Amino acid sequence: MDNNKRPDSMQRITTPELAEAFISEQVEAIRQQVGDKKVLLALSGGVDSSVVAALLIKAIGRNLVCVHVNHGLLRKGEPEQVIEVFRNQMKANLIYIDAVDRFLDKLAGVSDPETKRKIIGNEFIEVFAEEARKLDGVSLLAQGTIWPDILESEGGIKAHHNAGGLPDDLNFELVEPVRILFKDEVRVVGSELGLPDGMVYRQPFPGPGLGVRCVGAITRDRLEAVRESDAILREEFAKNGLAGKVWQYFTIVPDFRTTGIRDGQRSYDWPVVIRAVNTRDAMSATVEDVPFALLQHITDRITHEVAGVNRVLYDLTPKPTGTIEWE
Amino acid sequence: MDNNKRPDSMQRITTPELAEAFISEQVEAIRQQVGDKKVLLALSGGVDSSVVAALLIKAIGRNLVCVHVNHGLLRKGEPEQVIEVFRNQMKANLIYIDAVDRFLDKLAGVSDPETKRKIIGNEFIEVFAEEARKLDGVSLLAQGTIWPDILESEGGIKAHHNAGGLPDDLNFELVEPVRILFKDEVRVVGSELGLPDGMVYRQPFPGPGLGVRCVGAITRDRLEAVRESDAILREEFAKNGLAGKVWQYFTIVPDFRTTGIRDGQRSYDWPVVIRAVNTRDAMSATVEDVPFALLQHITDRITHEVAGVNRVLYDLTPKPTGTIEWE
Repeated sequence: MDNNKRPDSMQRITTPELAEAFISEQVEAIRQQVGDKKVLLALSGGVDSSVVAALLIKAIGRNLVCVHVNHGLLRKGEPEQVIEVFRNQMKANLIYIDAVDRFLDKLAGVSDPETKRKIIGNEFIEVFAEEARKLDGVSLLAQGTIWPDILESEGGIKAHHNAGGLPDDLNFELVEPVRILFKDEVRVVGSELGLPDGMVYRQPFPGPGLGVRCVGAITRDRLEAVRESDAILREEFAKNGLAGKVWQYFTIVPDFRTTGIRDGQRSYDWPVVIRAVNTRDAMSATVEDVPFALLQHITDRITHEVAGVNRVLYDLTPKPTGTIEWE
Repeated sequence: MDNNKRPDSMQRITTPELAEAFISEQVEAIRQQVGDKKVLLALSGGVDSSVVAALLIKAIGRNLVCVHVNHGLLRKGEPEQVIEVFRNQMKANLIYIDAVDRFLDKLAGVSDPETKRKIIGNEFIEVFAEEARKLDGVSLLAQGTIWPDILESEGGIKAHHNAGGLPDDLNFELVEPVRILFKDEVRVVGSELGLPDGMVYRQPFPGPGLGVRCVGAITRDRLEAVRESDAILREEFAKNGLAGKVWQYFTIVPDFRTTGIRDGQRSYDWPVVIRAVNTRDAMSATVEDVPFALLQHITDRITHEVAGVNRVLYDLTPKPTGTIEWE
């Protein structure tokens, strides 16, 4: 099977049986390509890189070196889940890098959204490249490129670098075992590989992580308010049957305070904005009609459990005229 | 009848007949107190000052001089309604002062809420005092003091100045014909005097007007966004049976922009926040469960009809932990 291009005749992978066949085929192909060499993977904990990790672990075990960079902009519990699933359960060769201070120090005082994104992207490459140089005898790089990435790239056949451009001295051969799959197929394969549902059916998450939801210049306390309120929202949506129904839901904390009252005293704290949208193509989106009683319960939890927050707002704006994210 | 203190035995005015009796009594009392002298009144267009105006017009006609100061922070259509009802329909002696530039120039660049309130209050007194000095032979000042104002003031018998302290050279004798009434009684009397429902059943409106809803430093364009979005909200609540049901509803425009998309182009505009709350005593408040379809329709109208707005948010916060207003 040509691993470079999705054959027109290829059947959509929708069943465990089809997933199993794909996995066997890819495990064989990976072993052929890699031999006894070592492969490096930037493991974010997202669906694509997690499925690639699981496939490579099945094929070459600890010859896969997973690097998980915690840049401080991940959701609550995500770094812990990556360690639990890959290091503890799958016995992966996992390098965990706590780069929280490094990223947040670089981002301090930077309010322009484009500059924030660039800093996060560049810093990620730098941290990853530093780690790669420390490793001896690694000549291959695995990537979670999927078929829509290829279709979006020029000509449809160019190599696609998820992690952006690595420095010239790091000239890796690419291993892209889910390159010909659509997103829904990646999920079916991931489930068959034994990854937990919370990882396989994870909502889409922007590359710069919570950084774009801590609007303006990121501070540690406001970032923590984003992370904690997001965790409450996810918990309540899961409990109330909305987690599988709503396409994307998250919280935003703008760099803006309002007057409130707590224990009879005036407070001056941030509002948390709840965003919950549905879309087919991300070009347009509608707002979910979340039951009012649930919104009230979430509001009560957020205003009482999250430090520095006295108000909760629901974003009623479809796309257009709004965008899904706030910056 | 002692006009200074509400008698314990006084029957609550709940019917047109009781209102009519109160009106006759007060018209007589006003004529006795005023004689052929002239009376000055700061007519804001709120319930209390409007009912006082109507009572005095009935008692002494054009010997009442109403001064309506438009400070630029009134709701859409309010100055026009004051002119229509009092000058055109009731043939009142009405002085209309366009002080919009004067107020907005003084407020330019001022973001501290307390300073904003002080500027608005002081400037109002100054404009009103200037006008009062221009008038010859006016020695009485009518005020819309009501019984709860008296109860809240020290000792319960001190004269209460709604307009705050006028300068010493303006030493008016007070005329306070609704001094012993509760708010609901003022409304019944107002209806009986022929005031339109929109005036009599007006929602509570803060003294500094829309100024506290144009959060932070007031600019003319953002103030216009507050006024226009508030008008749309009021129109839709009236159309959909919520105007008489919800205690207070209004819009806020924070000094904060977010990314959006319009006609395929990136936009960077303000969000409008909708606030709709119910309360008995204003010490605590709950949020109205506005039907989602109506919220969506209002969002569509505001994002398409109000310049500079690309997003609409619904404030889910009860009091506490929020306050009803945002500053």
